[in-house]
Amino acid sequence: MAPAEFRAIGHTLIDMVAQWLEALPSQPVTRAETPTQVRDALDASRSLPAAGVAAGPLLEKAARLLFDHSLVNGHPRFFGYITSSPAPIGMLGDLLAAAINANAGAWRLAPMASEVEGQAVRWIAELLGYRPGCGGLFVSGGNMANIVGFYAARAAAGEAWRIRSAGVAAADARRLRVYASAETHTWVQKAADLSGLGTDAIRWIATDDTLRLDTAMLRETMAADVAAGDVPMIVIGTAGSVSTGAVDPLFAIADICREMGTWFHVDGAYGALAAALPDAPRDLQALHLADSVAIDPHKWLYAPLEAGCLLARDPDVLRAAFSYHPAYYHFSDGDGINYVDLGPQNSRGFRALKVWLALQHAGADGYRRMIGDDCALAARLYATAEAHPELDAGTLGLSIATFRYVPPDVRDTIGTADTDAYLDALNEDLLDCVQRSGEAFVSNAVVRGRYLLRACIVNINTGEADVDALPGIVVGIGRELHAKRRAGGAGA
Amino acid sequence: MAPAEFRAIGHTLIDMVAQWLEALPSQPVTRAETPTQVRDALDASRSLPAAGVAAGPLLEKAARLLFDHSLVNGHPRFFGYITSSPAPIGMLGDLLAAAINANAGAWRLAPMASEVEGQAVRWIAELLGYRPGCGGLFVSGGNMANIVGFYAARAAAGEAWRIRSAGVAAADARRLRVYASAETHTWVQKAADLSGLGTDAIRWIATDDTLRLDTAMLRETMAADVAAGDVPMIVIGTAGSVSTGAVDPLFAIADICREMGTWFHVDGAYGALAAALPDAPRDLQALHLADSVAIDPHKWLYAPLEAGCLLARDPDVLRAAFSYHPAYYHFSDGDGINYVDLGPQNSRGFRALKVWLALQHAGADGYRRMIGDDCALAARLYATAEAHPELDAGTLGLSIATFRYVPPDVRDTIGTADTDAYLDALNEDLLDCVQRSGEAFVSNAVVRGRYLLRACIVNINTGEADVDALPGIVVGIGRELHAKRRAGGAGA
Ligand SMILES: Cc1ncc(COP(=O)(O)O)c(C=O)c1O
Ligand SMILES: Cc1ncc(COP(=O)(O)O)c(C=O)c1O
Repeated sequence: MAPAEFRAIGHTLIDMVAQWLEALPSQPVTRAETPTQVRDALDASRSLPAAGVAAGPLLEKAARLLFDHSLVNGHPRFFGYITSSPAPIGMLGDLLAAAINANAGAWRLAPMASEVEGQAVRWIAELLGYRPGCGGLFVSGGNMANIVGFYAARAAAGEAWRIRSAGVAAADARRLRVYASAETHTWVQKAADLSGLGTDAIRWIATDDTLRLDTAMLRETMAADVAAGDVPMIVIGTAGSVSTGAVDPLFAIADICREMGTWFHVDGAYGALAAALPDAPRDLQALHLADSVAIDPHKWLYAPLEAGCLLARDPDVLRAAFSYHPAYYHFSDGDGINYVDLGPQNSRGFRALKVWLALQHAGADGYRRMIGDDCALAARLYATAEAHPELDAGTLGLSIATFRYVPPDVRDTIGTADTDAYLDALNEDLLDCVQRSGEAFVSNAVVRGRYLLRACIVNINTGEADVDALPGIVVGIGRELHAKRRAGGAGA
Repeated sequence: MAPAEFRAIGHTLIDMVAQWLEALPSQPVTRAETPTQVRDALDASRSLPAAGVAAGPLLEKAARLLFDHSLVNGHPRFFGYITSSPAPIGMLGDLLAAAINANAGAWRLAPMASEVEGQAVRWIAELLGYRPGCGGLFVSGGNMANIVGFYAARAAAGEAWRIRSAGVAAADARRLRVYASAETHTWVQKAADLSGLGTDAIRWIATDDTLRLDTAMLRETMAADVAAGDVPMIVIGTAGSVSTGAVDPLFAIADICREMGTWFHVDGAYGALAAALPDAPRDLQALHLADSVAIDPHKWLYAPLEAGCLLARDPDVLRAAFSYHPAYYHFSDGDGINYVDLGPQNSRGFRALKVWLALQHAGADGYRRMIGDDCALAARLYATAEAHPELDAGTLGLSIATFRYVPPDVRDTIGTADTDAYLDALNEDLLDCVQRSGEAFVSNAVVRGRYLLRACIVNINTGEADVDALPGIVVGIGRELHAKRRAGGAGA
C-alpha cells in the first residue's frame, strides 16, 4: 500500500470511527446475538481467497462488521467486569505505535520507544507513590503483570538451589508456598500452575467481614509452613479485589513479610491507581512497601487493550528472573534498558506509547478527577440500591457496587435456605437478561456465597444519568422474571 | 476528547505518518544515538505534570520524537533480526482494534472479534497445511506462542499426577525432559525455566552439517531417558532457525514422536509460513504432523508488533493446560470460544484484526509472492557474497543469508587459530559499525563457532537494489576497520 493510499484510506477510517463514537450513546451496549448470527455475518467458514482485495473496501467492511456486532465497553452504560472505556488518544497512540513498529525488546532496536516506556513506568510509579528508581515494564495485562511479579519472587526464593536451571523439583529444593486471600483474582492459580509449583502450593487465607485478608491467619499459616520446613515464597495483597474492590490490609501484610523475609506482591491491577486520590483507602499508601506491584493501564488509565504494567523494587530483580543472553543477540550493555531481559517476551510492541500519551493528555490531576468520578458514581449507585425497596445493596469498594434484586414478597424470608437459593437463581437469570437487553451491562460477584449483580465503573463516558438508569432497568426486568417464575410455579 | 477533535487530530496524524512513510527510503535506518542523546530529546527525567495538555500538539510532538529517534525496521535496508516491516493495513487495523477495544477473552464481550480471531487462526492453518479443526489463538509473539505449546505438552505429560495442581515436584511426579537442537531459539530456556522444569531438563541435541537436528542422537537420548525412568515431555523441531533459517527434519522427528508417544512441537515462529511456497523445503510439509506449531504473524505476515499465534491439535489440549473458571466470570458454554480458556492471559486485545485484514488484502497468492521474494533476495545476496573476493558466504536458509568480511591478506591463513579469532573480532566490530552507519542494518549469527554477519529479509519494502548495496557497505567499512587494526598493530 503506497503512502497516498494509506492517507486516503486512513482518513476514511478516522471519519468512520469518529462517527461511530458520536453515535455510541444511542446504540445498544451489545446486540447479544447468537454465535450463529455473528458467524453468518462474517461468513465464518469461507477459506482464505487466493487473490487479494482492495484495502479501502476491505477496511470499511471490517469496520461495519465490528460496529454492528460488538459489545462496546466504551458505551456509557457498560459497567461489566473491569474493562475500561478506551481513551481516544490511546486509539491514535496505537496507530502511531504500529507505524513506528518499534521492537521494544532491545534499546538499540527501539531507542525512543524504550525511553518512553521507562518514562511511563516512572510516571505510573509517581502516581502510586511507588519507589523512585524502581524497575518495571509493560506487559499484556493484569494477568501477565502479576505473573511477572510472581516469577521475580520465585527467582528470589529459589536462588539458593538455582531454581531457574535446576527446577522446582531439584534435589535440594524446598517446597515454595504462596499466600493469598480467597478473594484473589484467578491469575494466582494460573501463576502457581504455570510456574511448576502447582495450585496446591497456594494457602488460601480467609477474609474478614470486609472481605480483606485476615492477617492473623496469614501469620499462623506462614509459621506452620516454616515449621514444616517449607519456604514462604510470596504473599499477595490485593489492592482492589475483582469482585468487590476490597483493599487488603497492606501495611500489616508488609510488616509480616518484612519479619518473615518474604516477597510482598500487590495485585493492584484494578485498584492501585486509586492511590492517587486524596481520599484513597489508607492501605493504598502502603504500595511503596511492596517488592512488586501489578497495575493495569487498560483498566484505570483508560488505555485501549492491551496494557499491563509491573513495577518492582529495581530492574535487577526482574533480570534475575528472566534474562538470557544468546549468542545471536548483539545488544550492548552500554545501551539503555533491554526490556527483553525483564520479562517473558522476546519481541515486544510499543504498548507504552498510548499510556504515555494519555498520562500527559489528562495530567495527574485529570486522572485524579476521572478516577474520583468513577468512585463517586459507584457510591451513588450503591446509595440508590440501599434506598430502593426492591434492591439489596451488597458492597461498595472503590468503583464497584454490588447489589441484588429482591422481590417484595420474599424479603421477609431472606436467610432461609429456600429464599436464598431462589434469589441466587433469580439474580443469575436477571444478570443474563440485563446483559442481553443491551440497555446496560453489569456482571456478577459471589459474595459470602450469595449471587449479586456487580457494577464496576471504569468509564470516562459514564454520567450520573447512566448510573441512575440502572436500578430501573434491573428492577423492571427482575419483576418480570419473578412474575414468570411465580406463574411457572418455581417456589421461593 | 470529543469525536470532532478525534477526527481533526486523527487526520493530522494520518497525514504525518503518510508523509513519513513516503520519506523513509531517503532517511537513515537508525541514527544510532547514545542513550543520553535520546533521553535529552525526550526530557526523560521530568515528572508527570499535574495539568493536562492539548491532544493535538502532544501527538504531533510524540510523532516527531519517534520519527527522529527510532530505528526503522520498515526501512528498505533493514535486514536485522527477524522483525518485519509493518504492512500499512495493519497500522490501520490496530487503530480500529483500539477503537472497538474488544476484550477477546470472552466471546460474550467480543462476539465479532472472537469470530474474526477464529477465522484468522483457520486461515493461517490453511496456509501452512495444518489440520482443519485445529485449535489456536493469538498471543504476544513467538516466545509466548512457543511457551503456550510447551505448556500444552506439559499438561499432557503430567496429567497422571495432576501436574497443574500438584506441581512439577509432586510426590508421584516423574522427571520431564525436553528435546531441542542447539540451534533452538532462547524461548526454550525461558519455557523450561518458567514452567518449573528448569533449563537442566533440556537435552540439547547436536545438529548435522546443515545445522539440522540430528535424529539419531535424538532417538538415543530419548531412549536413555526412558530407561532412566524419565518422561520425554516434548520434542521441538525448528522450522526456520533464528540464526540460519535451517529447517529441522520434521518428518523424521514426527516419526520418533509417534513411536515414543511424545508431544511434537514445531517452532515455526520465523519459517512456518514458508510452507505456503510451492518450492518450500520439503520438511515444511510435515507441519500437520505436529501437536502444536508456533507462528509469528509479526514476522512473515508483516503484521505490526505484536502478533504471535499458536496452533494446536484441537482447542481441548489448550483448555486442558490453561482453563480456570472463577465464580465472578459468567461466560456461557453456549457461546463461542472463550479465549481466556486457551492461554495465560485474562483480558485479551484484538491482535487478530490486523492479521485478518492483511491476509485478505494480499490473499494467499500475495503472501506466496512476498515470502518468495524475500527468499529470492536472500539467495541473491548469498550469491553476491559467494562471488565477492572479500566476503565469505556462510549459510543460506529461507530468507537468511550469513557471510563475513575477509580481508584479502588473511584469506590464506583461515583455519589457523589466530586468523579465526581475528576474523571473529573484526566482524563483530564491523557489525557494530554497519549498524551505526544507518546505511543498512544487519545482525549477527554464530555458526559453528564463527562470528558472521546475518541478513534476514522479512521486508515488503526491500528491492534488489537495497540488497545489492549491502556488500559494498560491508566491504567498505570492513576495509577501513582492517586498515585501522593493522595500523594499530592488532595482529591476525
Ligand atoms: C484484581 C485483578 N487482578 C488481575 C486481573 C487480571 O487482569 P487482566 O484481565 O488485565 O489480565 C484482574 C482483571 O479484572 C483483576 O481485577
Ligand atoms: C525461531 C524463532 N523462535 C522464536 C522467536 C521468538 O519470537 P518473538 O521475538 O516474536 O517472541 C524467534 C524470534 O526471532 C525466532 O526466530
